This record gives sequence, structure tokens and C-alpha cells, in this order.
Amino acid sequence: MTSESQRGHRVRAVGRGPKVRAVVHAATLAELIEKGYAALTVDNVAQRAGVHKTTVYRRWADRESLVVDALAEHVAADIPVPDTGAVDTDLRELARSLVGTMTSPSGQAILAAMFSDAVRLPEIADARTRVFDDRFRRAEPVITRAIERGDLPADTDPEEVLRALVAPIYFRLLISAEPVDEATADHAAALALAAARAGVLRKK
Amino acid sequence: MTSESQRGHRVRAVGRGPKVRAVVHAATLAELIEKGYAALTVDNVAQRAGVHKTTVYRRWADRESLVVDALAEHVAADIPVPDTGAVDTDLRELARSLVGTMTSPSGQAILAAMFSDAVRLPEIADARTRVFDDRFRRAEPVITRAIERGDLPADTDPEEVLRALVAPIYFRLLISAEPVDEATADHAAALALAAARAGVLRKK
Repeated sequence: MTSESQRGHRVRAVGRGPKVRAVVHAATLAELIEKGYAALTVDNVAQRAGVHKTTVYRRWADRESLVVDALAEHVAADIPVPDTGAVDTDLRELARSLVGTMTSPSGQAILAAMFSDAVRLPEIADARTRVFDDRFRRAEPVITRAIERGDLPADTDPEEVLRALVAPIYFRLLISAEPVDEATADHAAALALAAARAGVLRKK
Repeated sequence: MTSESQRGHRVRAVGRGPKVRAVVHAATLAELIEKGYAALTVDNVAQRAGVHKTTVYRRWADRESLVVDALAEHVAADIPVPDTGAVDTDLRELARSLVGTMTSPSGQAILAAMFSDAVRLPEIADARTRVFDDRFRRAEPVITRAIERGDLPADTDPEEVLRALVAPIYFRLLISAEPVDEATADHAAALALAAARAGVLRKK
């Protein structure tokens, strides 16, 4: 890593460590959105980021791990934790954020990458797990606060609530191929809430 | 179609009309399961079915429409309509049937085909719609009887109930890549029932 800044102007402009990571991530997402997963190359990503190809390979084993790393970080960064004071509006806001992310150009790129041949790579599986872990963590305070307010059964599982919330959204995006919008989000939130209140989403 | 039986032994053995259709469908599914969607050819299907390639092309425009037609019919035939006398056990049986179908070798072949490049073809979209329409029709009596028994709100939408039922199953199959089993089915049924009872799955 230390040798990079000695190599010349382009690399010095990018800097090192976290900065290189961010620039390469952004370039990866841009390439993914513009050209799709199948056409994405480390060469093009490096060129767009203004770094040497070897700089990319020093941090990421191959294009797949580069893509999934960029995607996982991007997805994780996108979803704020709502705190409206009530579980129904919290879940609705969370669902709307998720719908916004999933239907954005980068969200579509993410889905395309995750449902390409790359899906068999362990790196993709890892990234997918990381994305869900992150989302589950974000749902946790919403559910914890709802339990504290007495709005949900005490042993409600935040992860199960988030699963119930995202499943109908993915269903429309990937299976029925119907429009996904705010109404989809609100419906998903209502569905998850009804199941949680009925005690169907308890910890096992 | 009438000229087929004049062409010789192989074709005569297969017969015409519905019989040819069934034999070619079976051969298509077998090829799909053995070799996958990408490697499937009309030649191989015809050979396995013991019919002339032209016999296949006379009924199906191309391999894509052949595949989706075979898949749609296969899926449609697999799901019985449960009638256990109670909505919770009906939904559980329906969910278990769906899980059984979706995790069978042919079910996996179907998912693989539906999430390959073929997904952009109008024929695949049509088949998908047909599959869902058929499943929705099968859910209808379950919901109608539950409404008659006073177990669900009068304006509960069978289609919405089925969506709520299948979404968590698809989520595990396609997104979280977790095991899908009887427990998945029972959980999906409980989730859909809770949402229906809460009035979240009403007709719009």
C-alpha cells in the first residue's frame, strides 16, 4: 500500500486506504449500473477510479469480490433506522426506505448481480449475508422500542419481522414482476406488523 | 398435424395431439433437470421424446415457449386444493404442497429457468402469469370456505392471501438461500393467516 503514492500522479490523486476503497467502490457501482455485471472488468473499474489495476487486485481477489464488497457497503449505507414514536409508522418508513433502495438504479444493479451466475460464488453469498445482517441490525431498535412500549409481544424477533417485511417486496420485484412503490411498502409493513402482533414472529 | 402418423414408426408410436404434447413436455422437463436451461435444445428434446424436430416446431415457436409451456403445465398440475375443514390447516397444507413442488428437482429446474436470461422473454412472463393465476385459483376455495365459516373477514382477497403465503417461501429459496422445509411452509401459512385475520389482505 505504501508504494502506491510513489507511482505517479493518478494514484497519488486517489490517496490510500479508505479513500482508495471508496473511489474504487464508486467506480465499481458506476460500471455495474452502466454496463451490467457480465460486462464489468477490473480494468474498466481501475481506469474509471484512476488507480492502477494492481491497486485493485491488492485489495480484492477478483472482480466478484470487488463487486460484492461494493454492493454490500452501498446497500448497508442506504437504510436509516426510523424512530417516529410508533411501530406502525416506523415499519412503514423502514419499508419505504427499502423499496427506495431496491428500486434505485444501484438497487437494480445489485439485484441483477445477485441473480446472475455470480450467485454461486461464495463471495456473493457472503455479501448477501452481510447485507441481511446489516438490515436486521437496523430493524432491531424499531422492534425493541415497540416491545418497550407494549406494542408487540415481548419475544418478537426483529429478524423475523424484517423477513416478513421484505419478503412481499422481493416477491413483486423478482417473482410477479409487478410495480414496486410506496403502496407495496405500506402493504408489506402492515403485513409484518399484523403477523408480529399475532405472535407469529417470535424468537424460536 | 394429420401428416405425422404417415411419417413412420417413431412418430406413430407417439401419437398425435394431446399425447405428443405430453410426451414432449415430459422430455423437456427431463432435459431441463438433467442439463439445465442453457444447454437445452429442441433437437435433444425431440430425440428424447421420439418425435421429429419439425413436430416440436409445429406446436412451439422456439425452445423458450416449449420450456415455459412445459413448466406451466407441470406446476399447475402439482398443487391440490386442500379441504380439511379449517382455514389454518388448509393454508398449512397448501403451503406444504407449494414447498414440496418448489423444492422438487423439477421445481428447482423451473426456478432456474425463470431466473435465467430467459426471464426477459415475453413467453416466460406469460408462463409465470399463468402459473400464478392457476395457484391463485386453487387458493380461492380455501378462502371462500373460510369466509363462509366466519373465520376470515368477508372481503379477504384469496390472491393476496396466496401472495402473503408464497412470499416468505420465495424469500428463503431465492434471497436468503436458507433451507426450505415443512417449518418454512407452516410459518408462511401462519403469517398469511395472521395478516388475513387482521384485515390486511382485503380486496382493494
